[in-house]
Amino acid sequence: MRTQVGIIGAGPSGLLLSQLLHLQGIDSIVLERQTMKHVLSRIRAGVLEMGTVDLLHKAGVGKRMNKESRVHEGLDIVARDKRCRIDLEKLSGGKVVTIYGQTELTRDLVDARRASKGKLVYEAGDVDIHDIDSDSPRLSYLKDGKTFEIVCDFIIGCDGYHGVSRKQIPENILNEFERSYPFAWLGMLSETKPVSNELIYVSHERGFALCSQRSETLSRYYLQCQLDEKLEAWSDERFWQELGRRLPEETANRLETGPSLEKSITPLRSFVAEPMQYGRLMLAGDAAHIVPPTGAKGLNLAASDIHYCSNALIEYYRNNNKEGLNNYSTNCLQRVWKAERFSWWMTNLLHNFADDSPFEKRLREAELNYLIESEAAQRVLAENYTGLPY
Amino acid sequence: MRTQVGIIGAGPSGLLLSQLLHLQGIDSIVLERQTMKHVLSRIRAGVLEMGTVDLLHKAGVGKRMNKESRVHEGLDIVARDKRCRIDLEKLSGGKVVTIYGQTELTRDLVDARRASKGKLVYEAGDVDIHDIDSDSPRLSYLKDGKTFEIVCDFIIGCDGYHGVSRKQIPENILNEFERSYPFAWLGMLSETKPVSNELIYVSHERGFALCSQRSETLSRYYLQCQLDEKLEAWSDERFWQELGRRLPEETANRLETGPSLEKSITPLRSFVAEPMQYGRLMLAGDAAHIVPPTGAKGLNLAASDIHYCSNALIEYYRNNNKEGLNNYSTNCLQRVWKAERFSWWMTNLLHNFADDSPFEKRLREAELNYLIESEAAQRVLAENYTGLPY
Repeated sequence: MRTQVGIIGAGPSGLLLSQLLHLQGIDSIVLERQTMKHVLSRIRAGVLEMGTVDLLHKAGVGKRMNKESRVHEGLDIVARDKRCRIDLEKLSGGKVVTIYGQTELTRDLVDARRASKGKLVYEAGDVDIHDIDSDSPRLSYLKDGKTFEIVCDFIIGCDGYHGVSRKQIPENILNEFERSYPFAWLGMLSETKPVSNELIYVSHERGFALCSQRSETLSRYYLQCQLDEKLEAWSDERFWQELGRRLPEETANRLETGPSLEKSITPLRSFVAEPMQYGRLMLAGDAAHIVPPTGAKGLNLAASDIHYCSNALIEYYRNNNKEGLNNYSTNCLQRVWKAERFSWWMTNLLHNFADDSPFEKRLREAELNYLIESEAAQRVLAENYTGLPY
Repeated sequence: MRTQVGIIGAGPSGLLLSQLLHLQGIDSIVLERQTMKHVLSRIRAGVLEMGTVDLLHKAGVGKRMNKESRVHEGLDIVARDKRCRIDLEKLSGGKVVTIYGQTELTRDLVDARRASKGKLVYEAGDVDIHDIDSDSPRLSYLKDGKTFEIVCDFIIGCDGYHGVSRKQIPENILNEFERSYPFAWLGMLSETKPVSNELIYVSHERGFALCSQRSETLSRYYLQCQLDEKLEAWSDERFWQELGRRLPEETANRLETGPSLEKSITPLRSFVAEPMQYGRLMLAGDAAHIVPPTGAKGLNLAASDIHYCSNALIEYYRNNNKEGLNNYSTNCLQRVWKAERFSWWMTNLLHNFADDSPFEKRLREAELNYLIESEAAQRVLAENYTGLPY
């Protein structure tokens, strides 16, 4: 088989890239290790920057999102008993965020790719990459007991942190930057009315909490928990009770409880791989970088990688212009590191760190007090949360 | 002897307080361990917030400052080879900083106190505090071989970090918060024309540098150095050479060099004592808190303590209103912690930390890049640098 762009991973990055290339007449094949059902059952982020929304519209998959998503003009920060609304729209000069679950977005992209007869190969086993520093890199995979090979012009690794792509970059070239946090998030999805129209970020002495949502009837709540927490220890009842304790009283009183659809524990991590390209391989999304979820940047960073990547490929095929390809890693990393900084800052600001010195605890309190009082500080939060320019 | 307010320390805090009280007809005595000459020879900060300048005018000591000080509407941040002017005035909505050496300011205060026949006791040995939790606390000291005692209504500790005042607060009540930094500042004062009209803060791979000034003919330069650096190892020539290497080329070329008037090495430290009062004792300035000098907040924090302290005492004597006295520590600490946070942030941003992980190094670079590109981030710097409201 032959294709122009071989894509590993049928998550939002891979599908979005494939769709954007298709609209410009560029052929691609997407290989995915899992079943479609598995990919579509992943519960992930749901806060989209305007740049991400624009890119989805550009890919022609914005129709259902337009109907079913919710636009948020602000968010709440609660620290001790002070509640502060961050007016994202006003403070960022008109930017908002769009609430639309990654699951829905992936489904829209799958539908679009299938409607265009896009080549999606699910349950592709043993995916491997060959001759990445040649002009004709190849992908191989196992499907229904047979081995297949695809000759490509480029290979794009959208295969997440554990994928095979990043490992293609030779050890003496690859630099990995990492930080882990001494806690995790316990998340619960439930078919209940969200407690607030907007997101609520809570700094509490019992730990961070986040009231989030996927739709008007689907709530997503998070609690800071121990890294070694066991899911079995968290009945729905215990979750609701603990959440109530971390919320301001009037909010807790309005909390609509109900059975959970899903619960999961996610450790928090910061990770960046440099460079994000090698030979004819480019990495995008989690394959190259992880952010702690506090700033809602994971999916949005993946989208900005795809912005740079799709533009680079389109310019190459259309005008034989290699500039975007050559600068892919540099362009992405500028934005990646700023989002890493913001996600790290917001995580530090709102969580309890057991090992903090008393000085560090006081600094955190001072920073929260300052944020609540200073419009300038809120402006910095708003401009980062709604997304720095590409 | 008897006085209303006994003040320990004839630095700017103690003298300013004494002067402000005098103007309201409140009697005080200032005890100072050192000679006047020694106090006046200390080379210290020189960047005054508008609130500090206002307070000095209120104390009637602004005349010479008005004539000889320089107003700075901005400062420069240099990171790698990018130079960025922070327009303090525009970004803070009209606030500026005033450049006037602490030495000059102390001299003006001494002159004012002496003109009013203020009671200043220099070379007061073995200063001690008694009965601080009674209504009549006492000060004792040794002078010319004799022991003296002063009965006071209140005692104000303006005697710096090593002074006796803070030690009066019982151990089970006093909380000390501390952080030291793994480097020091090597400072040099020289009678040369400052290299720039404004201050230049430099982040460089060889270490932080600061081009500062006391007047049009008096420059003050700083270099980040090792904690165990030896002054003897730094000839003037070596200092100028190292400074030149850390400055952008065009700035280095304009550097006017000359013999040093003074050189010193200062370790950087953050420190806060809570509470800042006990019984009839109130602490002000370095007796209660230290900031690393990067944000130029030390003297300004001392001034804001004196603002709260003088107002509290005046309200008490004039209207028998104890509110300001009761809330002294709380009022001061709100502002102190925000300045500690800012000083810590600016120190972290601009210095090299040998023990940093590669992730932390990249975060710092990202934060500098963000600061240079984002007006919102610059606004935060400007509002803190020019001084948060009292």
